[in-house]
Amino acid sequence: MKFHHHRLANGLNIIGEISPSARSTALGFFVRTGARDEVSQVSGVSHFLEHMVFKGTPRRTALDVNCDFDRIGANYNAFTSEENTVFYAAVLPEYVPQAVDILADILRPSLRGEDFEGEKKVILEEIAMYEDQPMWCAYDHAKKAYFADHPLGNSVLGSVASVQALTREQMQAYFDRRYVGPNITVAAAGNFDWRGLLKLIDKHCGNWPSGKAPRKGVRPAAGRDSFQVVPKDKVQQEHVFLISPAPAADAPLRHAADVLAMILGDDTDSRMHWALVDPGLADSADVSFHDYEGTGSFFTSLSCAPEQTQKNLSILRGLFRQVQADGVSAEELAQAKSKVLSRVVRASERPMGRMQALGMSWTYLGKYRSMDDELKAFEAVTLKKIREVLDRHPFAEMATLALGPLKKLRKPR
Amino acid sequence: MKFHHHRLANGLNIIGEISPSARSTALGFFVRTGARDEVSQVSGVSHFLEHMVFKGTPRRTALDVNCDFDRIGANYNAFTSEENTVFYAAVLPEYVPQAVDILADILRPSLRGEDFEGEKKVILEEIAMYEDQPMWCAYDHAKKAYFADHPLGNSVLGSVASVQALTREQMQAYFDRRYVGPNITVAAAGNFDWRGLLKLIDKHCGNWPSGKAPRKGVRPAAGRDSFQVVPKDKVQQEHVFLISPAPAADAPLRHAADVLAMILGDDTDSRMHWALVDPGLADSADVSFHDYEGTGSFFTSLSCAPEQTQKNLSILRGLFRQVQADGVSAEELAQAKSKVLSRVVRASERPMGRMQALGMSWTYLGKYRSMDDELKAFEAVTLKKIREVLDRHPFAEMATLALGPLKKLRKPR
Repeated sequence: MKFHHHRLANGLNIIGEISPSARSTALGFFVRTGARDEVSQVSGVSHFLEHMVFKGTPRRTALDVNCDFDRIGANYNAFTSEENTVFYAAVLPEYVPQAVDILADILRPSLRGEDFEGEKKVILEEIAMYEDQPMWCAYDHAKKAYFADHPLGNSVLGSVASVQALTREQMQAYFDRRYVGPNITVAAAGNFDWRGLLKLIDKHCGNWPSGKAPRKGVRPAAGRDSFQVVPKDKVQQEHVFLISPAPAADAPLRHAADVLAMILGDDTDSRMHWALVDPGLADSADVSFHDYEGTGSFFTSLSCAPEQTQKNLSILRGLFRQVQADGVSAEELAQAKSKVLSRVVRASERPMGRMQALGMSWTYLGKYRSMDDELKAFEAVTLKKIREVLDRHPFAEMATLALGPLKKLRKPR
Repeated sequence: MKFHHHRLANGLNIIGEISPSARSTALGFFVRTGARDEVSQVSGVSHFLEHMVFKGTPRRTALDVNCDFDRIGANYNAFTSEENTVFYAAVLPEYVPQAVDILADILRPSLRGEDFEGEKKVILEEIAMYEDQPMWCAYDHAKKAYFADHPLGNSVLGSVASVQALTREQMQAYFDRRYVGPNITVAAAGNFDWRGLLKLIDKHCGNWPSGKAPRKGVRPAAGRDSFQVVPKDKVQQEHVFLISPAPAADAPLRHAADVLAMILGDDTDSRMHWALVDPGLADSADVSFHDYEGTGSFFTSLSCAPEQTQKNLSILRGLFRQVQADGVSAEELAQAKSKVLSRVVRASERPMGRMQALGMSWTYLGKYRSMDDELKAFEAVTLKKIREVLDRHPFAEMATLALGPLKKLRKPR
């Protein structure tokens, strides 16, 4: 494995990790922009723009984009989150030039008026579809309750009203501000020639504008002790999210936080699994650690029969009290480490997995982390560090939101 | 990459492909048994037995199986099909001894009476759950219509009646007949020591009984020109399957058949995509090639609004007539090859992918196929070979089954 980094004159960063034994190459364009970078008037613009990127350029129609990717057998896609918009493709090494040509071209989209209006309908359908998914609704509501006026509470999809009101000109202005050289990292992993890649990226992206794309509102989110019930008809189960503070994406304690989440609420063999899922009290109960720029959170989710919800919330409350008081055991720590090490290795086995890890690491930390760096960081997690996570980010103040058939619930004491 | 093969005295085959640069190891136990090996009285026993394998042994309770896998961070699972029951796990190389210990142990399950009755409820729930999925129901009905009295028409899940009537003794008898040495292949891929693996397998599996486990009814399925409509309430869309003959799993034409299916009905950029999905006439329309021991079939599936179904069936009929008359173009062939080569490479990148490919190749062909063997076989597909597939297995006689709101449909001419 060899790592390389280069910065173009316009500020665009190019990073690459070469694995000579790989038989494919994964390429990703990481734009450091997402829902948290939107003002409320343009809520949903990052995600809508991600769709528009596939709708064509001066050189390609939407059909050409699709056919050109298919002609080289590319496995390609994109996603938008609160903080990132990422476009990527995995191809055989001989098709890297074509893949760069397509990806770089579509990252300068035409944003044609007729495509914009057509795609707006698709986005509105996507919003309607998500509104049919109670777990997702509960998540979006809970995020708003927890983050309140913090920009991480912004919805990635936006609302029907904000998307309907959005104009092509607003999207163009957002694009011009955010899709500038210094705000974009190109990450490559697998089998490729570094000098050749540099030349290609320089040729296709060297003339992209530079400029500053500062992120506002980078600050810890305040812990929040709230309790909300959102009645929803035509839903069978009750869906509950509990959100509490956790370390940020660049915090030294982030690996310990990840291990703690696994001990408490991994989908197999965790405290919640044995207390709630295994005895059949809940369909699912898990904890995951989400790290962001400037803050982080533990997301606990629970899905169960409505009549069981009150009791399950008490059980959850008991689990949090117990871990807060007594921490975790050495045996639990050892077992969680085995799991997490195995997952890191398996996620790194494909160029696609390494490309994602490289791009995220550069975006959040501005540095390279090899798979072994990650493994060592997880191996170095101690009981003391987990204690430190609990002390700094206690499971005491939690924003709780339940969505489902229930009209009311008592906050467990 | 180095390949090894060894056969134990009881007939159990062990195969392994070593990839020194891999950071994990995947292990699979491939039992050559499935729904096609069941008589109607025990329909569903293969799949039910797969579940029971995780319910414990003289050395382990069901809980121990779960905990022991988790302690080594294993990514483990199993599946049952018409022809195979496969148990597998991916682990870090240092945990290979424990993984073999667990997998080999559970492959000699206790089949305890109380576990059997408890798991029967889980299986019945699984059957009920699948019956809620119209696409799956259409598939199961279509398979029965096409295969008729051929054993490949047997349902993998079985019916509520057959599962309810199944006894522990019938399952034990099926296990004793089918889970014998010569009917099992252990496949390993990734980073491991071959001599060490052999010793482990010999220690844990060397005393397993031998014996013959012949497969009955290995023969081509007759093409069948049938047309059936199954009205189903509470379903919004019409779900249609069309099944027609194709090459068998060991046929030299199988790679050409795979490429032909891709040109006709891949999920992006295929003839069906442009004729039905892209213009919005159907939600989905695709063709896939299923190869079995002794026979094969093309499965064409279509999902669309009920009122559009009649017209879509005519369009499909037109597409099949056209390909039957004119074959495919050199450009289509070149593009499909790019796609398929890229998919083969990406599927082979993880030990898990290679282990699956190795086990299946050994089970069906009794020989080793490297990733490069597969790539060469796809590269060698010509227009002439595709013509040969069409001539030997014409899209003329097709079993068509539609399930959804419609009460009747005309067979398109």
